Amino acid sequence: MDVPPVPTVDDVHRAAERIRPFAHRTPVLTSSALDGLTGASLFFKCESFQKVGAFKFRGATNAVMSLSDEAAARGVATHSSGNHAAALALAARNRGIPAHVVMPTSAPAVKKAAVAGYGARIVECEPTLEARETTLDAVVAETGAEFIHPYNDPRVVAGAGTAALELLSDHPHLDVIMAPVGGGGLMSGTAIAARGLSAEIRIIGAEPDLADDAFRSLEAGEIIPSLAPKTICDGLLTSLGPLSFTVLSGHLERIVTVSEDAIIQAMRHVWERMKIIIEPSSAVPLGALLEDKLDLRGLEVGLIVSGGNVNLDRLPWSDA
Amino acid sequence: MDVPPVPTVDDVHRAAERIRPFAHRTPVLTSSALDGLTGASLFFKCESFQKVGAFKFRGATNAVMSLSDEAAARGVATHSSGNHAAALALAARNRGIPAHVVMPTSAPAVKKAAVAGYGARIVECEPTLEARETTLDAVVAETGAEFIHPYNDPRVVAGAGTAALELLSDHPHLDVIMAPVGGGGLMSGTAIAARGLSAEIRIIGAEPDLADDAFRSLEAGEIIPSLAPKTICDGLLTSLGPLSFTVLSGHLERIVTVSEDAIIQAMRHVWERMKIIIEPSSAVPLGALLEDKLDLRGLEVGLIVSGGNVNLDRLPWSDA
Repeated sequence: MDVPPVPTVDDVHRAAERIRPFAHRTPVLTSSALDGLTGASLFFKCESFQKVGAFKFRGATNAVMSLSDEAAARGVATHSSGNHAAALALAARNRGIPAHVVMPTSAPAVKKAAVAGYGARIVECEPTLEARETTLDAVVAETGAEFIHPYNDPRVVAGAGTAALELLSDHPHLDVIMAPVGGGGLMSGTAIAARGLSAEIRIIGAEPDLADDAFRSLEAGEIIPSLAPKTICDGLLTSLGPLSFTVLSGHLERIVTVSEDAIIQAMRHVWERMKIIIEPSSAVPLGALLEDKLDLRGLEVGLIVSGGNVNLDRLPWSDA
Repeated sequence: MDVPPVPTVDDVHRAAERIRPFAHRTPVLTSSALDGLTGASLFFKCESFQKVGAFKFRGATNAVMSLSDEAAARGVATHSSGNHAAALALAARNRGIPAHVVMPTSAPAVKKAAVAGYGARIVECEPTLEARETTLDAVVAETGAEFIHPYNDPRVVAGAGTAALELLSDHPHLDVIMAPVGGGGLMSGTAIAARGLSAEIRIIGAEPDLADDAFRSLEAGEIIPSLAPKTICDGLLTSLGPLSFTVLSGHLERIVTVSEDAIIQAMRHVWERMKIIIEPSSAVPLGALLEDKLDLRGLEVGLIVSGGNVNLDRLPWSDA
């Protein structure tokens, strides 16, 4: 992948203006029960309530709404079997332009239905990295659509950062901000926004033990790909890209890794105490606190809740 | 049971003042997806986010905070294995007075733990109606505590009505207001508040087909007890009392009954589309709309979501 230009906090501000007519300003929720459990004051920025149920809608919308009319008319394309595909499909529909989504034949029917439901064209390919890329190249060549990468794209990263921008605008005195790390788009946008607004705020990423490629990449000083990770956090399976590696290397105090048990426990605590549905990926930062992987007692801590898309027929605690 | 005096909308206003320092003003949420499914504009008053996870905290708090200092010093007592017990325990703790809760030996350990966690004294009894009443009488005789009935108490009903008061204060133009009906305390408070604020608003109760004693009671013109109902709505197993029978007879346009399938489907829709956790009892009004038991297309409909206390190890759709 190319190294795209790194967005600035001004890009995040512009993204916020651009997406305002389309995205929800999601609520920031607190829980005295979870404060009691962790000893910190927690502020949950609930992207679970965002359109398509995930922060991804912010980045996709910013990318789509940034296009010139001429480029937009040719449409957008991506490869994804997850929230980015649905987010890009809805963003494209909001602009009235075509979206082409390359999905593996193995993608669950329910995910295909969600993407198709937002009006995107699904182009199937074999479930290999090579097939995905050649199919995407063919779609782009055929249509002239603009490829919007799920996270190695400064427009997507700037859009993702608008969640932290809103959180810090509501709660400017946070001592720490945390987000889960998968491909690193959310964490990059969060870090750029947070550092742009505060010279002091501590910026910490959280990653499953079983998908700790970002942790190892920062340790090694180079991108170490994620190899078939087995975590329940289906939103955190991807590896860092050049853009997120650059941003995270420059901005993060650290990445803390979290056990599956602590992630599941954190997710269940949020469901039981806060009565909101969050997906496993969203529970990783809280899991780090529950597991005492870092001590933030007495501090005000913002946590970006990345999304709320969960298969209700298969909850992690009923698999045990 | 005695017929207590019927509270007025002024009592509901006074209750609102009384509970304000203790209870959350819960959010009113909307969902374009569920509006699309039902053809109505739905406004969900989310008592699932209330303290102890249920509207019950409003009535219990109003009752406890209404007591004279002298009466309060002797404490409060009730029999309940559900949300009212936890609500009364917390309300008593907030006033710094004792709470005595009579619970059957068969009550789940998790419910006893919740009540004990709020500092109440649990008095166990055999799981029969007779044992419950004699045990409660003995506790009251021994301690001088004031019995706070879960719903046949005007203070409890006035407190329950504060949820509708807030909903109609946020959204004064609702055409219809709906609530689930169990013992009828929530529906009574809702009806008194709604009619007190609006001469036109339609007031409709919703009840499971499998626990339709309130529907049959209103048809018959007398209280018909609920006999061992089998619904999954564990908050709606009780029969009307003299107070709720009087209020519901005078105020309700109708009670609509709803199948278990529609209740489960409604609950799941709310979890999936709104990303919030509501208990089965809370889903009954939406179930009525999904099942086309009444046609409210084009109308603005307020729904009181009674609570969010669910056993996450046993969800209704995984029992199927």
